Amino acid sequence: MIGCVCLNCAVDITYHVDALVPGTSHRVHEVHAHAGGKGINVARVLNQLGAPCLVMGFVGGGAGSAIVDDLSASNISHHLTSTAAESRRTVTVVADSATVLNESGGPVTSVEWTRLRHDFEQACSDLERVVLSGSLPAGVPGTAYAELTEIAHHHGVSVLLDAEGAPLFAGLEAQPDLVKPNDVEVAELLGRPVISAQDAADAGRELLHRGAGSAVISRGADGVVAVRGDQAMAVRLPDPVRGNPTGAGDALAAVLASHQPKDDWRETLQRAVAVSAAAVMSPVAGEFAGDVAERLRPQVEIEEL
Amino acid sequence: MIGCVCLNCAVDITYHVDALVPGTSHRVHEVHAHAGGKGINVARVLNQLGAPCLVMGFVGGGAGSAIVDDLSASNISHHLTSTAAESRRTVTVVADSATVLNESGGPVTSVEWTRLRHDFEQACSDLERVVLSGSLPAGVPGTAYAELTEIAHHHGVSVLLDAEGAPLFAGLEAQPDLVKPNDVEVAELLGRPVISAQDAADAGRELLHRGAGSAVISRGADGVVAVRGDQAMAVRLPDPVRGNPTGAGDALAAVLASHQPKDDWRETLQRAVAVSAAAVMSPVAGEFAGDVAERLRPQVEIEEL
Repeated sequence: MIGCVCLNCAVDITYHVDALVPGTSHRVHEVHAHAGGKGINVARVLNQLGAPCLVMGFVGGGAGSAIVDDLSASNISHHLTSTAAESRRTVTVVADSATVLNESGGPVTSVEWTRLRHDFEQACSDLERVVLSGSLPAGVPGTAYAELTEIAHHHGVSVLLDAEGAPLFAGLEAQPDLVKPNDVEVAELLGRPVISAQDAADAGRELLHRGAGSAVISRGADGVVAVRGDQAMAVRLPDPVRGNPTGAGDALAAVLASHQPKDDWRETLQRAVAVSAAAVMSPVAGEFAGDVAERLRPQVEIEEL
Repeated sequence: MIGCVCLNCAVDITYHVDALVPGTSHRVHEVHAHAGGKGINVARVLNQLGAPCLVMGFVGGGAGSAIVDDLSASNISHHLTSTAAESRRTVTVVADSATVLNESGGPVTSVEWTRLRHDFEQACSDLERVVLSGSLPAGVPGTAYAELTEIAHHHGVSVLLDAEGAPLFAGLEAQPDLVKPNDVEVAELLGRPVISAQDAADAGRELLHRGAGSAVISRGADGVVAVRGDQAMAVRLPDPVRGNPTGAGDALAAVLASHQPKDDWRETLQRAVAVSAAAVMSPVAGEFAGDVAERLRPQVEIEEL
């Protein structure tokens, strides 16, 4: 089973309005609300791929109840740790364009963070891999992903880390098995531009040097660059797809997390790029059509760098 | 005890951002969330006035849990009826100006509406008065306030109705003891302009003719016009106060609902106008400073019309 850690779970609320006019009142025509946060988005894709998964993270208050209810309704297993603080919300207002309001989440107390590590360690016996992804709520230390990686490794569980900034920087020291930042995140981390596929390959090697077992750097419409051992590959569709990129990175992480030792790494990368592109093409952020992904997969090209 | 019926309870969420720019992402600096909806706002004011009250209405889902938790934390008694549909939210984004996003609420099923009437009837034995206020969620019939008024009267409970549009129109037929629309709402109902105090007095007489026991028409900064029997009075502060009018009408309704037979009607009206003005002056919508209301009360002027 694959553990999906979502320390900063959210109720993702989408409002449809005629036009968003600051300073006025709006009647919302259509409301959609579901459990979100990167770790939960990864779990949704794994669920659709038929890979058993378990969501772990913090939930609190009425928003926390809504998250638990939605996961249960979606048949996604969960083992969540309670916080006194209410879980955060994100509000996306859709009119001509999408306007996003992100709450930051938390605060989590040190007692709650200790309890989560305990819950996580207990779950490890049932896991073969864990995905650590997304931002940290207030109160959780920047070393959170490093600490969870050490616990996972102690129990023989491999780790995919999808984070940015300080949590990624600190996490690398604990030697996660795979990291999956995007080009912007890795450029910020390394303090240099990452423009070309070759830049991304160099950045990936640097991530391996800093502790990662392997690295997949996503580059938006240009696909991904994967670095593993001495090998670097650019993996992409010849014709970029158009649509909503929200959730495409989580779809990529989910397919990478479902990689088994018996699987061919190149085939996993092709499938990851195809599913991610299908997610971009989906009208609903974070969802994808399985048949679209299947149709795209044979078109994905691999170039050794 | 005063019953406060809030059929369309909400989680009122306030976000503070630097500036609201449509089409972009925003980090929310500050989040406030509390139980809202007009009936709950009335209950908050009654609670502050020291008048025992009971909130009734529909709640559902995670938002419903948040509403229940917040009422309990505020020491406001409640007897709420569950719905399968999640309770609605309202989101107010505060930057230079306030931008409001209102979910409409519901749908409530006919079985749930039957259950609420049953719960309401059971509660009536503990009530002396009930306030029916605010909008109706989808699924609740436009005759809802008329039906609840009939049940209340059957049990000797007097009714204050604060509604607009069809629910007010239908509600009048059940002869509520007091109605409290504002000038805009009553103008819309009667299909004629209500500008002057005399217009409001005429409109109030028309409401009595249509079934209301008495009528108080709120006129924003111009105070209220009260019509009772043959008597019409304009009640106002000589110098209008400035601030946020949100919740001022609910403060007015709360004071009117706390009127006892032994109380002087003129004094109740003066106090209602003073508390409502104090609510306008409060930095937080719907709250008021008791000492400010006390200071304003002797200044309130009454003019017979």
